[in-house]
Amino acid sequence: MNKEPFIAHATFHVRYAETDAQQIVHHSAYIVYFEEGRSEYLRQQGTSYADFERSGFFLAVTEVNAKYIKASRYDEKLMVSCWVAEARSRTLLFQYEIREAKTKELRVTGITKHICLTHDGQIARIPDEWQKWV
Amino acid sequence: MNKEPFIAHATFHVRYAETDAQQIVHHSAYIVYFEEGRSEYLRQQGTSYADFERSGFFLAVTEVNAKYIKASRYDEKLMVSCWVAEARSRTLLFQYEIREAKTKELRVTGITKHICLTHDGQIARIPDEWQKWV
Amino acid sequence: MNKEPFIAHATFHVRYAETDAQQIVHHSAYIVYFEEGRSEYLRQQGTSYADFERSGFFLAVTEVNAKYIKASRYDEKLMVSCWVAEARSRTLLFQYEIREAKTKELRVTGITKHICLTHDGQIARIPDEWQKWV
Amino acid sequence: MNKEPFIAHATFHVRYAETDAQQIVHHSAYIVYFEEGRSEYLRQQGTSYADFERSGFFLAVTEVNAKYIKASRYDEKLMVSCWVAEARSRTLLFQYEIREAKTKELRVTGITKHICLTHDGQIARIPDEWQKWV
Repeated sequence: MNKEPFIAHATFHVRYAETDAQQIVHHSAYIVYFEEGRSEYLRQQGTSYADFERSGFFLAVTEVNAKYIKASRYDEKLMVSCWVAEARSRTLLFQYEIREAKTKELRVTGITKHICLTHDGQIARIPDEWQKWV
Repeated sequence: MNKEPFIAHATFHVRYAETDAQQIVHHSAYIVYFEEGRSEYLRQQGTSYADFERSGFFLAVTEVNAKYIKASRYDEKLMVSCWVAEARSRTLLFQYEIREAKTKELRVTGITKHICLTHDGQIARIPDEWQKWV
Repeated sequence: MNKEPFIAHATFHVRYAETDAQQIVHHSAYIVYFEEGRSEYLRQQGTSYADFERSGFFLAVTEVNAKYIKASRYDEKLMVSCWVAEARSRTLLFQYEIREAKTKELRVTGITKHICLTHDGQIARIPDEWQKWV
Repeated sequence: MNKEPFIAHATFHVRYAETDAQQIVHHSAYIVYFEEGRSEYLRQQGTSYADFERSGFFLAVTEVNAKYIKASRYDEKLMVSCWVAEARSRTLLFQYEIREAKTKELRVTGITKHICLTHDGQIARIPDEWQKWV
């Protein structure tokens, strides 16, 4: 029986530097918004990815996928929603939706895959105390 | 007699993508934070720089100066404070302070200078309805 | 009968600003490297994506996928290889490999999907004179 | 008697991601171009800033100034010229000019100030073997 995943939401304004000559948000900026979603996810769990790194581990990104539905523009307020779609002992799969914050119009969906590494670059089990957050 | 300038404050978390291999915020990211300060300045005046561009004008950046006092790190909550230090008919000088949001520890100070341009690239007077915001 | 696709190669050094606190290239930077591959692809065809936009069209990004094989570091010389994997009347699929330039060690692979739009945002056929480049 | 400083030149194409909704290069991108000039400066001296960090030191940025003369656009080939304007025992001042590579039209000028730090964050003398490069 699956239980509903915890979903974190972060809102922010599109920065001018994130737009491009098409006068829309550059597609690479959404990858950074995804990351901001992950950061908020851990903040809402009462912790921080900074603490995860201080505990001796990294979450390396092994794959990114983004589907661009509709363009966003400067100063729009966006909301990234982020949840753990799959958690294994060594890997994590985060899923994302980015919407205009007010109308909830969908802009971008995506996933990122991560693997747990020690600071020496060895693949490692995600420590138990972190498994519960994710 | 000078009156006190209106000061806008925007807070945000340092994004992982904004850090560099020194494990601190890359110095170029603060230039984007300055811009976020300007965006917030206009939002708090009930308008948007997007409206300014739609009205037929640009504010082109003619100079940037930043002094780096102390490094910032991933996930820290920063506050950029932004005010108009000098407003002339065709040019604007914004001033900035970036602090850690809670301790108010000073991280970076700076200024940006701007000139008003039409969409054809001609120098222009800042329209009256915008002079009051700035 | 398939013919071998034309493959464009662009080389560049990793910039310090593209690294993150893990002391490796941030995963979003490779999305920009992909784009640099596309730019080089058109340059090597004797044209420029800037000309494509001047002719009245955009290539909007509809999907990005990147698989991260091995990390890259500051000042490494990387080579992005880029080719058209699929060209339809309205859409394009570019494929990418990013390698360390000297050892040819594979770092990242990926694809981007694009759709041709007019400046009004209408889906359009890629003009004939551009079909031959791609 | 002053001797002429060594000047390093690096050329590169403007990336689409570096443009903004004004359809010109975003002003923060030039700060990254300055850094690319510094990287090239050390490469042309037969070394790398990566080696400097491996030797136990950082060059922290303490100030940036940029003056924007004329806008640059996507796919233009730019050249950043970079030289040491002042070298003291603990600090360095780099100076920059960014020009269109072919016409040599001036786009941006600037300086960056740096201080030598140990990995613990202590101010340090720039080691003798590095003084000669700069």
